[in-house]
Amino acid sequence: MKTASSVRVTEEGVRSILQAALDKAKSMKVIVSIAIVDDGGHLLAFMRNDGARLHTVPVAIAKARSAALTRNPTGKKSPSGRDMDDHQALAITLAAGPGSIVTFPGGVPITVNGQCVGAVGVSGAKSDEDREIAEAGIAAL
Amino acid sequence: MKTASSVRVTEEGVRSILQAALDKAKSMKVIVSIAIVDDGGHLLAFMRNDGARLHTVPVAIAKARSAALTRNPTGKKSPSGRDMDDHQALAITLAAGPGSIVTFPGGVPITVNGQCVGAVGVSGAKSDEDREIAEAGIAAL
Amino acid sequence: MKTASSVRVTEEGVRSILQAALDKAKSMKVIVSIAIVDDGGHLLAFMRNDGARLHTVPVAIAKARSAALTRNPTGKKSPSGRDMDDHQALAITLAAGPGSIVTFPGGVPITVNGQCVGAVGVSGAKSDEDREIAEAGIAAL
Amino acid sequence: MKTASSVRVTEEGVRSILQAALDKAKSMKVIVSIAIVDDGGHLLAFMRNDGARLHTVPVAIAKARSAALTRNPTGKKSPSGRDMDDHQALAITLAAGPGSIVTFPGGVPITVNGQCVGAVGVSGAKSDEDREIAEAGIAAL
Repeated sequence: MKTASSVRVTEEGVRSILQAALDKAKSMKVIVSIAIVDDGGHLLAFMRNDGARLHTVPVAIAKARSAALTRNPTGKKSPSGRDMDDHQALAITLAAGPGSIVTFPGGVPITVNGQCVGAVGVSGAKSDEDREIAEAGIAAL
Repeated sequence: MKTASSVRVTEEGVRSILQAALDKAKSMKVIVSIAIVDDGGHLLAFMRNDGARLHTVPVAIAKARSAALTRNPTGKKSPSGRDMDDHQALAITLAAGPGSIVTFPGGVPITVNGQCVGAVGVSGAKSDEDREIAEAGIAAL
Repeated sequence: MKTASSVRVTEEGVRSILQAALDKAKSMKVIVSIAIVDDGGHLLAFMRNDGARLHTVPVAIAKARSAALTRNPTGKKSPSGRDMDDHQALAITLAAGPGSIVTFPGGVPITVNGQCVGAVGVSGAKSDEDREIAEAGIAAL
Repeated sequence: MKTASSVRVTEEGVRSILQAALDKAKSMKVIVSIAIVDDGGHLLAFMRNDGARLHTVPVAIAKARSAALTRNPTGKKSPSGRDMDDHQALAITLAAGPGSIVTFPGGVPITVNGQCVGAVGVSGAKSDEDREIAEAGIAAL
């Protein structure tokens, strides 16, 4: 079998995710940047809240990219599911190159029928709040 | 006078621009990526149409960034308004570094009361169509 | 409709493409590097012939990546199909960033049921020969 | 004596290593990316297993490159053989630049007659398994 079928998120799906994440941030009274990427880590949509700090732009995009490339939520679990110590977390981040692995929460893969079809990254609030916002976005799919 | 007032586009303004640009692209039956940046060239919003090619992501962002940083539409006019030949166009692009100057159409500054407050970059259609879509977005502000 | 179905090449498919491209290069008595990437431009497989020059490594990878991201063969046609002059070709290359667009032959998209599922990039021979080798690889799919 | 003889791995040797490493990964039921580089750290061959996560691509290549450049297995031993603490491990990684030194297992030099002629890097399983796969590949030489 030389090819296999796969799934992707449509523009309509992307809009639902983005709006639900923005609504969640608003309801939590936090100010964030939100990035959505496809399964290859390429940007699909992005929105920065009024007043969000500028470092949240690359951080939200890196979180989304990390969650897509590793197919796991960002954090100190390794891609294969074990806890990483500080050295391991930073060493794999450096090995993967700039903007590819993020070892704190806020990036969450979008999974459809067990397949990773992209990811959402949020930056600007506490990192557990960032993750909650990303999850709320994905729940709207 | 040691400080001066400035103008910026709000999230509501950004949404109007993005929606108007998306509507324009749809009415022209073209498939594009649209990026909106602030006056410092930092991303405010981004949307990729269903089916847009992946190189349109960095190109739309670079066009928006170029128009914001030079405060001029992207193209073969120099930032100070003179026509550039091929060497000049590519030399200034290389001098400014990756993704900072774009010398073909599709990036348009957002000007309010004579002040550049950001820019819109579009990629995916013919470059004159890209520019038209960016202008339609800005007209909605 | 929030998701849509898609296609990907399996490892078995990738191996067929790589072997057919290597066989073609051998039959042409040329020495090359061959890269195969997925639809997001991420490496699937790579092989460098005995004696191939080292610059062929990044060039083959960039050609494959370019053909995947633009969904077009590499060359001086723009992604939307028009002929580009020297300035346009180099300007879009710089706008897209390092290793993303290549404006000479040797990168060819892999298309299945009208959908781009990846690409092959070849470097080391004359660029028309590079393209021929990539096409021979894809024909084996 | 102004020149000296050197040894290199041929394409046939590279293929043996790659196939033996792929067979080992299969027998261990793990899904990985495998990179083989020459003594200068330049890619010779690469294969990504069906379903391997995308961050394994740059990580496998970085591990192979690190083992070739330091002529030592990747890990927290310094290139001169002493144990490094966390700061030393990350500091030398940053000093060497992106993708040049990796301080966890999975990159193994290929040594012939006491001379480093290249390296194998594996990513995707637990890092000790990655190393075992690289070693199995090299054993086939």
